Amino acid sequence: MFQPVLQDTICAISTPPGTGGLAVIRVSGTDAILICDKVFAPRKSGKHLLMQPAGSVVYGTIQSNNETLDDVLATVFRAPHSFTGEDTVEISCHGSIYIQQQILRLLIEQGARLAQPGEFTQRAFLNGKMDLSQAEAVADLIASTSAGMHKLAMNQMRGGFSEELKQLRTQLLDITSLIELELDFAEEELEFADRTQLLTLAENIQRKISHLADSFNVGNAVKNGIPVAIIGKPNVGKSTLLNTLLNEERAIVSDIPGTTRDTIEETLHIGGQMFRIIDTAGIRKPTGDRIEALGIQRSFEKAEKAAIILYLFDLTKKNDMEDLLTTSQWLQSLQKPFLMIGTKNDLSPRSPIQISENVLQIQISCKDPLDIERVKNEILTFTQKQSFDQNDLIVTNIRHYESLCNALSAITRVIEGLQTNLSGDFLSQDIRECIHHIGEITGEITTDEVLGAIFERFCIGK
Amino acid sequence: MFQPVLQDTICAISTPPGTGGLAVIRVSGTDAILICDKVFAPRKSGKHLLMQPAGSVVYGTIQSNNETLDDVLATVFRAPHSFTGEDTVEISCHGSIYIQQQILRLLIEQGARLAQPGEFTQRAFLNGKMDLSQAEAVADLIASTSAGMHKLAMNQMRGGFSEELKQLRTQLLDITSLIELELDFAEEELEFADRTQLLTLAENIQRKISHLADSFNVGNAVKNGIPVAIIGKPNVGKSTLLNTLLNEERAIVSDIPGTTRDTIEETLHIGGQMFRIIDTAGIRKPTGDRIEALGIQRSFEKAEKAAIILYLFDLTKKNDMEDLLTTSQWLQSLQKPFLMIGTKNDLSPRSPIQISENVLQIQISCKDPLDIERVKNEILTFTQKQSFDQNDLIVTNIRHYESLCNALSAITRVIEGLQTNLSGDFLSQDIRECIHHIGEITGEITTDEVLGAIFERFCIGK
Repeated sequence: MFQPVLQDTICAISTPPGTGGLAVIRVSGTDAILICDKVFAPRKSGKHLLMQPAGSVVYGTIQSNNETLDDVLATVFRAPHSFTGEDTVEISCHGSIYIQQQILRLLIEQGARLAQPGEFTQRAFLNGKMDLSQAEAVADLIASTSAGMHKLAMNQMRGGFSEELKQLRTQLLDITSLIELELDFAEEELEFADRTQLLTLAENIQRKISHLADSFNVGNAVKNGIPVAIIGKPNVGKSTLLNTLLNEERAIVSDIPGTTRDTIEETLHIGGQMFRIIDTAGIRKPTGDRIEALGIQRSFEKAEKAAIILYLFDLTKKNDMEDLLTTSQWLQSLQKPFLMIGTKNDLSPRSPIQISENVLQIQISCKDPLDIERVKNEILTFTQKQSFDQNDLIVTNIRHYESLCNALSAITRVIEGLQTNLSGDFLSQDIRECIHHIGEITGEITTDEVLGAIFERFCIGK
Repeated sequence: MFQPVLQDTICAISTPPGTGGLAVIRVSGTDAILICDKVFAPRKSGKHLLMQPAGSVVYGTIQSNNETLDDVLATVFRAPHSFTGEDTVEISCHGSIYIQQQILRLLIEQGARLAQPGEFTQRAFLNGKMDLSQAEAVADLIASTSAGMHKLAMNQMRGGFSEELKQLRTQLLDITSLIELELDFAEEELEFADRTQLLTLAENIQRKISHLADSFNVGNAVKNGIPVAIIGKPNVGKSTLLNTLLNEERAIVSDIPGTTRDTIEETLHIGGQMFRIIDTAGIRKPTGDRIEALGIQRSFEKAEKAAIILYLFDLTKKNDMEDLLTTSQWLQSLQKPFLMIGTKNDLSPRSPIQISENVLQIQISCKDPLDIERVKNEILTFTQKQSFDQNDLIVTNIRHYESLCNALSAITRVIEGLQTNLSGDFLSQDIRECIHHIGEITGEITTDEVLGAIFERFCIGK
């Protein structure tokens, strides 16, 4: 287990970087209150921070070289009743960059040190205020920009996932203790653990782990956006549709840092769910089999990445029905939800085209808001048909996914062992491995390296 | 006097925009606690916000459609003991953009409305928590990026300026009441106010107002940066000096929004003071009188804008001493602090050049940190020779400056009137005008339009 130096007191600006009405500087550690008391002058005498009860707010000033740096509010929290589990002071100052920096400087002069990214949350974990998966959820919660992401992170932070893992762990520990008891009495060839019962239990655990691991695809889609590919021949209106979808939502679309524009073209929110819209170059008109194949190939690759496909065709052009039918068959072969969209309906002189009864097909004009609404609803409907419902526990973290996969391998070996009457010591080893991997997720088992990797992706001040 | 509708409850994100460890949403108004209570579920029963004492922090959750949106801390302030003077709740939530927006949405659903920029401070003013010049200082304080700016704003916010104006106003009211008393007894030709004494008093007031108005140049320089022009012939190392100065300070230089790059080239902080370094195109080598004149003219224009001039010449080139002497005479004629800097000292094969005993002249190499330090010290020394000292009241706001100029005109007319035995009713009118203009600064006299113009430059949430 990671043994940190928790004696020192850390400080950081916890509010977003920049200028604002106010900013909050958080100080946590054994000397947090003492250090803040040295730079804080209460407005009313007798209101020194050291004498303040937990959860109280004091009005005063920050003093620097006998001059008033700022009027502030200081909130005092006392261990263990704080986010970190340590004595903590939150200083709410005016949101000037200069003031924020100067207060940090004063705190550091008095003995605090600047916190590392995520160090407050790390301390919360190390002080037993939350397990590791909950701590990770704090970062996800802060980064969440959609209702879906937010909900998953909130569920994880509230410990739903931890609870499930804890149950699995307890069951595994029960099995292993029975088997290990047998090992103690190996000479007597006793069998404390009924193998059939063990098998049922192990299969049950396997099912649960497998279900959690499977949920990663959904979780990942929620977290990073469900990929939707828009494909079709050139000039069928792919970019127009994309732009119309984006413009409609522009007001609530926020820039997600770190989304690479090479692979993720645009991010779009529909009904609280984030989508990554992958625009494609138009499939070229076939001038020969080889080029046709290349074109299809390119779209195929895009379609492979996508979870949902929108195939566009131009209603104002003469559409080869056989071509459309072939395309629809190809789309069906991908075994992914797809929608065939006839575009430029407002300009189309023709009556509706019916490709096939089996194919979901609509005709739209990007100028008609109702049509755009229809497209969005269809996209959303696809996602709601997924096998995970909203209240399922869903894994969003690749580290958890990897640990679950390792746990799944281990429990699968246990099942195989039980089926082939493997000896107790081998069984026990696999069960212990399964427990180990589950413990990695919640942080019972961890290393400095793992903790470092987890907390470095946090922002400073959390 | 501006009559606002203060019944409604306003809310806004008060921390800087964006994602961070935490964010603070401020709610102020008659129903602030009631509205927050509806969306806040305390962790411990009996800790409802409505029952909380002032200045206490409660831990709980924000509920949205029976789901937990976030774990938050809510701090309750009760009128008049809050920034705005109204009931106020500050909700400290996780700094996710999604959470911040959702909490605002919930508050608005419960009856709050989104605050206008500066509306919290405007309420503090309207509720008598501060006068107008103090309210304006809040915005300056938040925008301050240097020790100088910060100090001026802090002094103004703490009411030093207001106090001075209040004294002037009291004195003026004393004079006018005496004179107006005379008017009441006009038929008896009484003279309650000794004219000589009045004159002394008026001259004293004029001196004070004049001193304050004069301080605007200093205040403006502190607030917007003292302009420093770097001039000299091509390739003497102007840009190298600028870049070296900037690189040394880059770590603590922050981007100041709104500085136009056309007129302000670069911002630099030296010793807590902000400077605007105006780089110039090199003065061309004379090929004829006209072009020489043009070159000088261009530099002259830059030099006119500047408060301090750095004239660079290349030590490795053959310098025409007469040329340097003429230049130094031209610089002296500008009546501004200037420094002649011989550059590329490290490459210079020559012994030091002495232009004139009257001219401040140094020789530097941009590769030598000590030389750069010297340049910075010289620049700083220039600013310290100014007639205003650090503890003087200094006007930084152009609105205040204009009111002071108007007050100055009025008091000057009073003095002229006293000297020419103008009748009491005319004197009284001018004194009243002087009082009016001073009242404009502190907000005794104000209009919707003035208030609108002042608070619209605030950030939302303050």
